[in-house]
Amino acid sequence: MNSSLNIKELIASMTLKEKVGQLNQKLYGWNTFKKTNDGYELTEEFKEHVKWGGGIGTLYGVFRADAWSGISFHNGISKEDSKKVIDMIRTYVNENTRLGLPVMFSEECPHGHQALAGEMYPCSIGLGATWNPHLVEKISEEISEELSIKGANLALVSCLDVLREPRWGRAEECYSEDPFLSSKYTEAIVKGYQKDDFKNGVAVVLKHLCAQGAPVGGHNSGAVNIGERELREIFLPPVEAGVKSGALAVMAAYNEIDGIPCHGNKKLLTDILRGEYGYEGLVMADGCALDRLVNMTGNKELAAKLALESGVDLSLWDDIYTCLENAVDTGVIDEKDIDRAVERILYVKNKLGLFDEKIEIEKEVNPSLNNKQAAAESIVMLKNDDALPLKNIKSVAVIGPNADNKYNQLGDYASYQNPEDIITVLEGIKKFVGENINVNYAKGCDIRDKSKEGFEEAINIAKNSDVAIVVVGGSSARNFTMEFDSNGAVKTSYDKSEMNCGENVDLANLDLDGVQADLIREIKSTGVKVITVLIQGRPHAIENIKEYSDAILCAWYPGKFGGEVISETIFGVNNPSGKLAVSYPRSSMQLPCYYNGKTYGIKVDYSDMPGAAAYPFGYGLSYSKFEYENLRLNTNKIKLEHLESGEEILVSVDITNNSDIDGFEVAQMYIVDVESTITQRDCELKGFKKVFIKAREKQTVTMSLSKEELKIWNRDFKNVIEKGNIIVRVGRNSNDYLEIKFEIF
Amino acid sequence: MNSSLNIKELIASMTLKEKVGQLNQKLYGWNTFKKTNDGYELTEEFKEHVKWGGGIGTLYGVFRADAWSGISFHNGISKEDSKKVIDMIRTYVNENTRLGLPVMFSEECPHGHQALAGEMYPCSIGLGATWNPHLVEKISEEISEELSIKGANLALVSCLDVLREPRWGRAEECYSEDPFLSSKYTEAIVKGYQKDDFKNGVAVVLKHLCAQGAPVGGHNSGAVNIGERELREIFLPPVEAGVKSGALAVMAAYNEIDGIPCHGNKKLLTDILRGEYGYEGLVMADGCALDRLVNMTGNKELAAKLALESGVDLSLWDDIYTCLENAVDTGVIDEKDIDRAVERILYVKNKLGLFDEKIEIEKEVNPSLNNKQAAAESIVMLKNDDALPLKNIKSVAVIGPNADNKYNQLGDYASYQNPEDIITVLEGIKKFVGENINVNYAKGCDIRDKSKEGFEEAINIAKNSDVAIVVVGGSSARNFTMEFDSNGAVKTSYDKSEMNCGENVDLANLDLDGVQADLIREIKSTGVKVITVLIQGRPHAIENIKEYSDAILCAWYPGKFGGEVISETIFGVNNPSGKLAVSYPRSSMQLPCYYNGKTYGIKVDYSDMPGAAAYPFGYGLSYSKFEYENLRLNTNKIKLEHLESGEEILVSVDITNNSDIDGFEVAQMYIVDVESTITQRDCELKGFKKVFIKAREKQTVTMSLSKEELKIWNRDFKNVIEKGNIIVRVGRNSNDYLEIKFEIF
Repeated sequence: MNSSLNIKELIASMTLKEKVGQLNQKLYGWNTFKKTNDGYELTEEFKEHVKWGGGIGTLYGVFRADAWSGISFHNGISKEDSKKVIDMIRTYVNENTRLGLPVMFSEECPHGHQALAGEMYPCSIGLGATWNPHLVEKISEEISEELSIKGANLALVSCLDVLREPRWGRAEECYSEDPFLSSKYTEAIVKGYQKDDFKNGVAVVLKHLCAQGAPVGGHNSGAVNIGERELREIFLPPVEAGVKSGALAVMAAYNEIDGIPCHGNKKLLTDILRGEYGYEGLVMADGCALDRLVNMTGNKELAAKLALESGVDLSLWDDIYTCLENAVDTGVIDEKDIDRAVERILYVKNKLGLFDEKIEIEKEVNPSLNNKQAAAESIVMLKNDDALPLKNIKSVAVIGPNADNKYNQLGDYASYQNPEDIITVLEGIKKFVGENINVNYAKGCDIRDKSKEGFEEAINIAKNSDVAIVVVGGSSARNFTMEFDSNGAVKTSYDKSEMNCGENVDLANLDLDGVQADLIREIKSTGVKVITVLIQGRPHAIENIKEYSDAILCAWYPGKFGGEVISETIFGVNNPSGKLAVSYPRSSMQLPCYYNGKTYGIKVDYSDMPGAAAYPFGYGLSYSKFEYENLRLNTNKIKLEHLESGEEILVSVDITNNSDIDGFEVAQMYIVDVESTITQRDCELKGFKKVFIKAREKQTVTMSLSKEELKIWNRDFKNVIEKGNIIVRVGRNSNDYLEIKFEIF
Repeated sequence: MNSSLNIKELIASMTLKEKVGQLNQKLYGWNTFKKTNDGYELTEEFKEHVKWGGGIGTLYGVFRADAWSGISFHNGISKEDSKKVIDMIRTYVNENTRLGLPVMFSEECPHGHQALAGEMYPCSIGLGATWNPHLVEKISEEISEELSIKGANLALVSCLDVLREPRWGRAEECYSEDPFLSSKYTEAIVKGYQKDDFKNGVAVVLKHLCAQGAPVGGHNSGAVNIGERELREIFLPPVEAGVKSGALAVMAAYNEIDGIPCHGNKKLLTDILRGEYGYEGLVMADGCALDRLVNMTGNKELAAKLALESGVDLSLWDDIYTCLENAVDTGVIDEKDIDRAVERILYVKNKLGLFDEKIEIEKEVNPSLNNKQAAAESIVMLKNDDALPLKNIKSVAVIGPNADNKYNQLGDYASYQNPEDIITVLEGIKKFVGENINVNYAKGCDIRDKSKEGFEEAINIAKNSDVAIVVVGGSSARNFTMEFDSNGAVKTSYDKSEMNCGENVDLANLDLDGVQADLIREIKSTGVKVITVLIQGRPHAIENIKEYSDAILCAWYPGKFGGEVISETIFGVNNPSGKLAVSYPRSSMQLPCYYNGKTYGIKVDYSDMPGAAAYPFGYGLSYSKFEYENLRLNTNKIKLEHLESGEEILVSVDITNNSDIDGFEVAQMYIVDVESTITQRDCELKGFKKVFIKAREKQTVTMSLSKEELKIWNRDFKNVIEKGNIIVRVGRNSNDYLEIKFEIF
C-alpha cells in the first residue's frame, strides 16, 4: 500500500471521464488481446476502451478460458505468459492515459482460477462437506498465490450464497444451507486470499449479496420474497463474517429481495453493509445486472443513478455505467456520488499495492496436496452395508456416465485443462489396483439421454466382476456447441446437452436424470455388489437406487483429484469424513427440507411422503465407529450480563473411536432456543470440531457458546441475547445427538 | 342493535371473572347438550363452564356434526330443533348468571353450515372458479339466513387465505391465488352474510389473518417467511377488502410470518388491521393456537399476555385465556387490556342484536337454485377434443373412485348429510339420460390404494360403451375411524385412509394418487372415448393423463349438486364457464407456478420441465367460441393528479360469440407496471367481467382502472401511484390477450 497516496486529492484532479473510466468494468478481458505467432498483441477494442475512459477501472477475465469466452490453449494465455500479458496491459494504460492510473484485474475463482490449466479444486458444495474451514483457508491462499504470480488482483469467489433451494443450478457454488457453517468458510476464504495484509496483492470478491440461494421456484437469479428476519438469520451472517474478516470487495446479487433488486438496494449495500458492518471496500455489480434495472427505471441514466446511489461502485459488462458521464452532465446524477464510488475503487487498488513501486514476485505454488486432501475430505459416505472398503477383489467393473469424464468432475466455471491433469474414477481405480486386478469399463448410459443401448455391455462386465463401481450424478460441463447470454449464462436448449447443473441450469426434478437409476437397478439385478458413486453439483434424490446399492459415496464435483481420492476411499486408504453441509432431499416434492426450519406445532410429514430429508444435515458415515458420551456444561445457569461481558458456556463431550480404523469425526453442536420473543428454529448449528481420533482411543471435545452464538434478532430487529432456556445438542449429525440444557437468567 | 346500551358502563360493572368469561370460547359446542328421548338437556360440563366464567362469551360449534365431533343424526340437533337448543342455552345463561349477558354462537361455514344436513355448497376453490362474486354474495346470504333461523351468530368462513402453495391440504378453502380476485370474493362474502345491516343477526368471521396460503413446504400451519411487501401485495388485500366491507370478526392464522406468530403479531392484528384499515370488530384465535405460544413464552400467563396485547380478543378451545384472571391477579396482564377485548366482543354482540328484545324470525330458505348455479359455474373445462358435449350416445360407462361417492364431493368441513340430498355423477348421469341410454358403473380403483383389482371390470364396461366418463381426483372426506387433534385436525396415519386432502393432509406429490392415472390409460387403450372428470380440492397434476382423455372437466368439490351439473355439462345443457382461479401445475416439482410472480430477467424453464403452469390462471374452455378485438382506452395519457382525484382509465374490448351456442365468458383485465421503484410482477389481475353472450352476438365490455388498482407499495411502504407506463392486457386468460399501453405522467 502506498500510504503517501492522497486519494481525495487524486480524485479532485480527475476529469469526469476519467472517473467514469474507473467505475466501468465493461470489457470482456479475453477481448483485450490476440495471440500472435510470437506472443500477444493488444486489440483495438481494448485501446478504444482505454481512450474512452481515460484508463480502465477494472478488467474482468483476461485469463478466462472456457466455452463462453471461446478461449482455449490455441488462442489463450499460458500460465507462463500470464504476467507478461498483464504487464503489457498495465504498461499500455500507464503510457497512454493522462494519469496512468493502475488497472485492477478480476478473475473467476469459485473453485480455482478459471484460466488455462488453472488448478481445479472441489466445488464449494464439496468443500462445504469437509467441515474444514482451515483447509479451505489454505486452498484460498494457494489460489491467491496462483493469481499473484499471474498478476491478477481480484478473485471472484461464491461463498455468500446459502443454499436453501437445491433445484437451483448454482447449488454447487454454495458451501452449505447453514449460515453458521457458511460463515466459517467465508471467513476462511477471506483470510486465505488476503493473507498477511494482502501480501499477494489479491483481494477476494465475495459473491453474492444477498439471499440468492433462496430463489422462488429454484430459478436462477429468481425473485426472493423473504422477510428481513429470514434475511438476517440465514443469509447475512456470511456477509458479516466476510466483512469482519477484512473483505475488500463484494458482488451484488442478481435477485431481488421482497420487491427490491439487490443492485438497487441501498439498505443492503450501504446501510447494512457499511453502516452496520463497517465495510470499506467496493461493491461490484454482477454481470449485466445493471442492464436489468432499466426495466424498472425506464432509461439507463436513471438505472445508473439507482445503482450508484444504492451503493454499486463498479460495473460488470453492462451498458449502464457507460452512461454515467451523460447522467452527470444532464443533472441526473450528482458527481459526488461518482466521487464516492471512485474513492472506494482507488482505496482497494491502493490496498492491493497497485500504486506502489513495482515489485517482482518470485513464487512457485504446488497446491496439489491441499487440493487432494480437500477432495478426500469432501466425500460423504451415505450408505455402507459392510461393502466398503473393498477387500479381496479380483475384478472390478467401472461403469457410468461420470466414471471416465474429466470435465464432469470439475463443475461450472471450469477452465480448459490438460487432460492428463484430471484423474477420473476409472483412471484412479486402474492406478490404485495396478496390474493385479482386472478393471473393465463401460459407460452404460449418458447423464440425460434416455438411451439404454449401453446397458448390455455394462451388465455384462458387471456380471463378470466381483464388484461394480457405478459412477452417476450430474454434469455442469459446458462445450463449444452451446450458446451463451451476455453474462455467460447458458441459453442453449437443454435437449441438446448432457449438462443438467450450473448457472442457469435449474432442475425441477432432483431424481437422477436420464436412465441412470435404471442402470443401477439392472446392474444390481445381476447379483453383483454395487458401489454407487455420485459425482454431482447438487444432491440428486436417490430414493429409487438406495436399495440397489451396497454402498453410496457422494463425491460432489471433486476436482482434478476426484478419481484418485474416490478410489482411495473405496479401497480404504482414505477413511471418509465428509458430512453433509446440505440436507439430502428425498425428492423435489418435499422442498425445502433444510434442517433449520420452523416446524413447531405442525405435521412435518406429507400424506404421501415423509417431510424430513433422506439424510439429515451433518450426516456422513465413516469406516471408524465413533461413540458420544458424557455431554456436560461448565454451568447450567449463566447470567445474561455475564454473557454480555464475554463469559462463555463450555460444552464438552467424550468421543470414542470404537473401531480398529483411525478416522476424522466432526463433532457438531446445535442449540434450540426454548424461550424467545420470536419463533424458534428446530435447531441451529453453533459450533463444530473436526478431530482425528485413533482406533480405540477416546478424545474429549470442548466447544463454547458465547454471546455471538446466542444472540437473536428480536422483534425490533435488535441483535440481543434473551433470558430463558437453551437446549444444547452435540452429536454426529443434526438428527443424532446427546442433549443438555442451560438457562440464561 | 340496542343503541341505548352503554358498553363501557356495562364493563365497569363486571367482575374480572365475568370479563374473562366473555373472552373465552373454550367449550366444544357439541358438549353442551345431550339428546334425550324427548328432546335435549344441557350438560354438567356446560353448566360448570357458565359458572366458571359468570356466563359464556362465545360458544363454538353447537351444531357441528362430523367425524371429529362424533355428532351424527342419532345424537345431534336436527334443523328443526336448532333454535330450541340455542334458546335453551341462552335461557340457562340468562337465568343462571349475575348479568345475564347474551351468548354468541359461532359455527363453521366454509362452504355451508357444518350442521346436520346443512346445505353443502361447492368449496371455495370451486366458487373461486366461477369468477362470480355476485353469486357468492347470494350464497353467503343464504347461509346467513340458514344460521339465522337456527339462532347462530358467527359464521366462520375461509376467504382470506390466498393460495400460493397447492401442496397445502387446505387449498380447497382458498378462492384464488390472486389477491384481487380473492378480495372481490371476500367483499361478496361479507356483504352476503351481513346483509342489510345484520338483519340476520349474523356476522362473518373471516379466516385467516394472514398469509396462511404460503406455508414453507406446503405444510399445514407451517411457517411463512415472506417479507412485508409480499404480505401487503398478495395476502393483505382480501383483509382490507373485508374490513372495508364491514366485517365484524376475523380469525388469526396459525402460521408465523418471518418469525412472528400471527397470534402474537401486534403490527398485524392491531396496527394494520385497526390502525390502517379502521377495523372495529373482534379478533378470534384459531383453535388451540394460543397453546402454541407457550413454546415461546415458557408459561401460559405470558402467552395470554402476548396474545391479548397483540390484539387477540377471543380464544378458541385453548387453555390460555382460561388463565387470564390469574394473569391479572399476579400482575402479568393489565386489566385495561382485558377491558378492551371485552368491549370489542360486546360491541359485536350488540351489533348483532343480542342485547335487543327477542324478535322471532320467521323465514324459510330454499338455497338450491343458487347452489346448483354455483356448482355449474365452477366447472372448468380444461380440454375438449371435440368430445363434448356428448351427442348420439347409446351407452355410457361411469367409472372411477369419485363417480359415486357422496362425501368425496363435499370437501373438508362437511357435515353429515341425508344421502338422498347428494347427487353423485353416476346418479346425475342416470337421471339425465333416463331409460333410453344404458349406464354401467364400475369403481375401477380407490383414490389412494394401489390395487388394480377393479380394473378388469372397469375396462370391460368401457369397452362395451360409447363413452367412458372417468371420475377421479381427491378426497377430503373424513370418517369415524380417524383420530383428531384437539383442534380437529386429522392425526390418523394416512395409510389407513382414502383421504388425501383437507386440513393437515398436505401432499408432496400433486399427481393423481394411487392408480387413478393407470386406470385412465388402460381404459383409453380400449379405444373408447374418455371423458375425465376431476373432483378434487386442489389442482392435481394431470400431465400423465392428458393425452388419454378426450375431454377433461375439473369440477373441484362441487357440493350436493355436483353429479347433476357435471352431467348437464357433459351433455351440453350447461355450457362450462369456470375459469381457473389458481394456475394449474404440471407437477409439484415446478412449484410455485402462480401467474403473478416476478420472472423478469430469468430463465423460467427448468432444464427438465417448463416453468409455466400446465394451464394458466384464468384459463377455461367453453362450448362457445369467443373472440376478442378492438381493445381501446379512453385515453393513452393521464395525469397522476387526475387519477388521485378520482379520474379513471376506461378499458373497452369487443367480444364476439362466434358459435351457435350461448355462453358466459369472463373477460379478464391485467396490467403490467412497466416503470416502478419496486420490481414488477409479470402481470396482475385488475378487473374482470362475466358476461352472457348469445350465439353469434357481439358485446362491448368496459372495465376501469382507478387509483385503487394502480397503487403500489413503494420503497417506503407507502401505497402510492407512480408515474410511468402501464401495459393493459385484456383477454380470455392470463396468457391469451390483447395489449395496449397508457402513461401516467
